[in-house]
Amino acid sequence: MTTQQLISEIKRKKSFLCVGLDVDLDKIPEFLLKEEDPIFAFNKAIIDATHQYAVAYKPNTAFYEAYGLKGWKSLEKTISYLNKNYPEIFTIADAKRGDIGNTSSRYAKAFFEDLGFDSITIAPYMGKDSVEPFLAFKDNHTILLALTSNEGAFDFQTKNVGQQELYKEVLETSKAWGNSENLMYVVGATKAEYLADIRKIVPNSFLLVPGVGAQGGNLQDVCKYGMSENIGLLINSSRGIIYASNKNNFADAAAEVAMKLQIEMKTILDGIH
Amino acid sequence: MTTQQLISEIKRKKSFLCVGLDVDLDKIPEFLLKEEDPIFAFNKAIIDATHQYAVAYKPNTAFYEAYGLKGWKSLEKTISYLNKNYPEIFTIADAKRGDIGNTSSRYAKAFFEDLGFDSITIAPYMGKDSVEPFLAFKDNHTILLALTSNEGAFDFQTKNVGQQELYKEVLETSKAWGNSENLMYVVGATKAEYLADIRKIVPNSFLLVPGVGAQGGNLQDVCKYGMSENIGLLINSSRGIIYASNKNNFADAAAEVAMKLQIEMKTILDGIH
Repeated sequence: MTTQQLISEIKRKKSFLCVGLDVDLDKIPEFLLKEEDPIFAFNKAIIDATHQYAVAYKPNTAFYEAYGLKGWKSLEKTISYLNKNYPEIFTIADAKRGDIGNTSSRYAKAFFEDLGFDSITIAPYMGKDSVEPFLAFKDNHTILLALTSNEGAFDFQTKNVGQQELYKEVLETSKAWGNSENLMYVVGATKAEYLADIRKIVPNSFLLVPGVGAQGGNLQDVCKYGMSENIGLLINSSRGIIYASNKNNFADAAAEVAMKLQIEMKTILDGIH
Repeated sequence: MTTQQLISEIKRKKSFLCVGLDVDLDKIPEFLLKEEDPIFAFNKAIIDATHQYAVAYKPNTAFYEAYGLKGWKSLEKTISYLNKNYPEIFTIADAKRGDIGNTSSRYAKAFFEDLGFDSITIAPYMGKDSVEPFLAFKDNHTILLALTSNEGAFDFQTKNVGQQELYKEVLETSKAWGNSENLMYVVGATKAEYLADIRKIVPNSFLLVPGVGAQGGNLQDVCKYGMSENIGLLINSSRGIIYASNKNNFADAAAEVAMKLQIEMKTILDGIH
């Protein structure tokens, strides 16, 4: 999916919501555990109930790898289901991969070609040649970690490298590796005020913002500081949506939370256009 | 496996060799492709032929994920085979994972509990709470990327953060998260002279050194600068060993290269004791 198609979808749906599919068998409704593939059954129900409010879905691979072969199969089924039934949806493998060049090529093949994700999150620590194999895929997107939403972000990301913090150095340096058509960034919503500075460095790039909801970020602030001319934001909510209820009505409860967020987003979008 | 057990094995075998199991179906002998699980068949033959010369094996997960479900199954079979037949071998999941705390816990469960690896490589960018869930597993080891062997290492890792390079900041900061019993570091062999500085910061920690052989590192130099009182080195070779031949004799050819390295290591170890 091209960036332009993503922007069109955002405008059509009046939403820049991404739903994080971080499925934990201990948290999903018990009756689903009887299903042959409870994770996929859960995801399918969540996707069917929320797709009109969201433009993107983001399974975090850790939650699937934690269930071994079965989990990997659930991931395959989930991305296939999305691509087949909702091809207009932008899909993100939240995998935080990154390795030396010939090895990163393997990950790129796995997630883009074989699984069929539109994009993948990548850790920047290993530098340019660890990121380039992902950027080599036309029509796919690389989402580089810049400033994450966890406490550990302050261990290295906000340390000064020369004149500026490391995460700004990552933004500045990586700009030359790609462009706003194939390179996006992860920026935690728990630090909305940082977004103004980030926009000075990458005015047009899409920012994937986790941490709205359960992790404490605020949507209004994120939009105030982080929105670009072309919107340029994907706001992720995982637990706040998918675990809105663990009863029989879980999908409806998820849809309700997603709809509320979409309405907030619509209000913001209507306000600027 | 405890660090002490690893050290004992190194002394017993007179080897600190790690064999990287980065299996590419385009590079293995053609006759193996007829096997039900060519990757596992290849690994099994390589392990059986080289185990007396090596103390560790390191499958890089990218090479397995690239083959989807089948690849994941080959990885499961490989680690099971190692644990069952060679329990004295130290196993490393070269996965370069790392995520926010509750997500890293998932990866830790997957690789330590379910797959049964002794250790895993972790990217440090997300800081303390992304690493701690791995350190929480007693008798397992977290191997943090410090200075990698690729060109991209110079993009961020060697940039100055305050008074010292980022990779030194990673070493210095992370020392407080664990100790030499549960925390090791990846240090690329292409920069052997850096090892002297690294040893000043982490005198006792084990260093996993990739890049000897195909990537150009030199064993003598690595030992000169990097060896600790308790040896403290695991030297990895992947392609140089496993693709020594792609003919019927591939396992013997791999054993020959591994043995040569082991003899070099024995000479070095005999020289210091």
